[in-house]
Amino acid sequence: MPASHGAPTRRHVAVAIGPDADPDLGDAVRRGGGTVVPLAQAQALIWASGPGDFPTSLPDSVEWVQLPSAGVEAWFAAGLVPRESAVVWTSAAGVYSASVAEHALTLLLAGIRALPTHLGATSWARAEAASARVDTLRSRTVAVIGAGGIGRALIPMLGALGADVLAVNRSGRPVPGAVSTFPTAQIGAVWAHADHVVLSAPATAATYHLVGPRELAQLGQSSWVVNVARGSLVDTQALVTALRENRIGGAALDVTDPEPLPDDHPLWTLPNVIITPHEANPPGLMRRAYAAHVSANVARFAEGAALDSVIDTVAGY
Amino acid sequence: MPASHGAPTRRHVAVAIGPDADPDLGDAVRRGGGTVVPLAQAQALIWASGPGDFPTSLPDSVEWVQLPSAGVEAWFAAGLVPRESAVVWTSAAGVYSASVAEHALTLLLAGIRALPTHLGATSWARAEAASARVDTLRSRTVAVIGAGGIGRALIPMLGALGADVLAVNRSGRPVPGAVSTFPTAQIGAVWAHADHVVLSAPATAATYHLVGPRELAQLGQSSWVVNVARGSLVDTQALVTALRENRIGGAALDVTDPEPLPDDHPLWTLPNVIITPHEANPPGLMRRAYAAHVSANVARFAEGAALDSVIDTVAGY
Repeated sequence: MPASHGAPTRRHVAVAIGPDADPDLGDAVRRGGGTVVPLAQAQALIWASGPGDFPTSLPDSVEWVQLPSAGVEAWFAAGLVPRESAVVWTSAAGVYSASVAEHALTLLLAGIRALPTHLGATSWARAEAASARVDTLRSRTVAVIGAGGIGRALIPMLGALGADVLAVNRSGRPVPGAVSTFPTAQIGAVWAHADHVVLSAPATAATYHLVGPRELAQLGQSSWVVNVARGSLVDTQALVTALRENRIGGAALDVTDPEPLPDDHPLWTLPNVIITPHEANPPGLMRRAYAAHVSANVARFAEGAALDSVIDTVAGY
Repeated sequence: MPASHGAPTRRHVAVAIGPDADPDLGDAVRRGGGTVVPLAQAQALIWASGPGDFPTSLPDSVEWVQLPSAGVEAWFAAGLVPRESAVVWTSAAGVYSASVAEHALTLLLAGIRALPTHLGATSWARAEAASARVDTLRSRTVAVIGAGGIGRALIPMLGALGADVLAVNRSGRPVPGAVSTFPTAQIGAVWAHADHVVLSAPATAATYHLVGPRELAQLGQSSWVVNVARGSLVDTQALVTALRENRIGGAALDVTDPEPLPDDHPLWTLPNVIITPHEANPPGLMRRAYAAHVSANVARFAEGAALDSVIDTVAGY
């Protein structure tokens, strides 16, 4: 019986939280087996704010700093992270992606299961009229455009539902869980093969109006377009036209262009459109996700295990 | 390189489809590597209807019969499946569960992500008012009441989203993927520990009004109740009261009591209610799922592999 192996050896961890006391992070530290102390006595510093207030020098006792952002360019730009450092720096890379991926899955499922019609219905017979349109993700092909943190969190969720995923990333290097991975340069081959499309790529010059009239024309009459990335990835006017002419199944948008979407915009009243107000990752869920990450990393530090999301201080990310 | 191993040896399979020619099943048979022939020449019979028209005797050439139902009691009751038989009989057990599980997941996600509010909104600011209620399934506890085919299909989907599952079944025998499994006799311990509840148990005397005033009172203010089983599992009057008094987060119902739900029923107009008209598994998706099962079983038969969903003719299921 494994009971005889005993628990892993834990060392005591003295943890400072900055810039201010934060009860949720204090709880997270204690759940991980740490004690909250002032910075002068701390082995670890858990940071809960931007680089602006960050101490310009750390006491020698500090062995580990946890930053709250997924991307840490601003910290390097501010000269706060030395290239060579005895301190281990960790970020929150990957920590906030799961909620956005879950939101994308929710939007896609709500679309293919006809919830926009059902949620407006007040009679069983009227609701039943939509039943013929109800579809499943099982054995359907979903293109995930952008296989960064959000895409990589979404792919196993789609896999658990039996969908086949086509991933698109810059390099075309195979993404785990995807049936095929296309480099961005070959994205033109994806539209005609996808039953549905989820946009999770960053907003860059290369992704501006990535989905326009030509791409929409290659999608099917029951295809849903889900955008949890940035509004600028979709040509809104072309999308409205495709929706008005029933050339695609629908659009589910957590981000829009323009954003916020004005009250009189046609997207508010078209059927088969789902709008959520850029809330795939609301502040409450971000705080909760960061606290869980802190708790897990404090426990790893206490056990002498490798920390999650370690920053490469030479590479700068 | 595995190419040198060659393809598995396939024998030719002559397959009859009954009671009538069915183009979709014909395609499924051919996809599996079979040829459609009249029953007199067939090694296998794929059945697409109830026991009423089933042949009272089969030609000696028939080695395998595929029935289209998940439960096959009616076939045994009609004396069509001999206890001792050289023929292998297969059912469609498990085949239709995935779509119902996907529907349950859709309803739960739509609820916790505030889609009932969002789908009625026509202004960004009004939509944003619901953002504070948006939640995630990650690290939340979901009770899955009834761990038959639907429950067992749902649990890995919830797992992929990071939820912890409490399963309830008759025996209490641990269900794979669940954090804990409770026997029905101890279901009273489940309500206070679950953030959300999904009902996927059969309608029996024991499950009548399984969710009533006492159970609803133990759920939390943000708990969703999802019912994809049968309307009778929920005490509708008690549910309406709990929803009116905001004592739970909401209810998402694919089945209702009474069903169909009358036009003037309060559930149609309460906020935080999602009604879908008993369409977790609409006929089109069932036909598609059966065709996929047939195709896979024909391929297995051709390769001499074990068939899926073999019926124990002695046990009767």
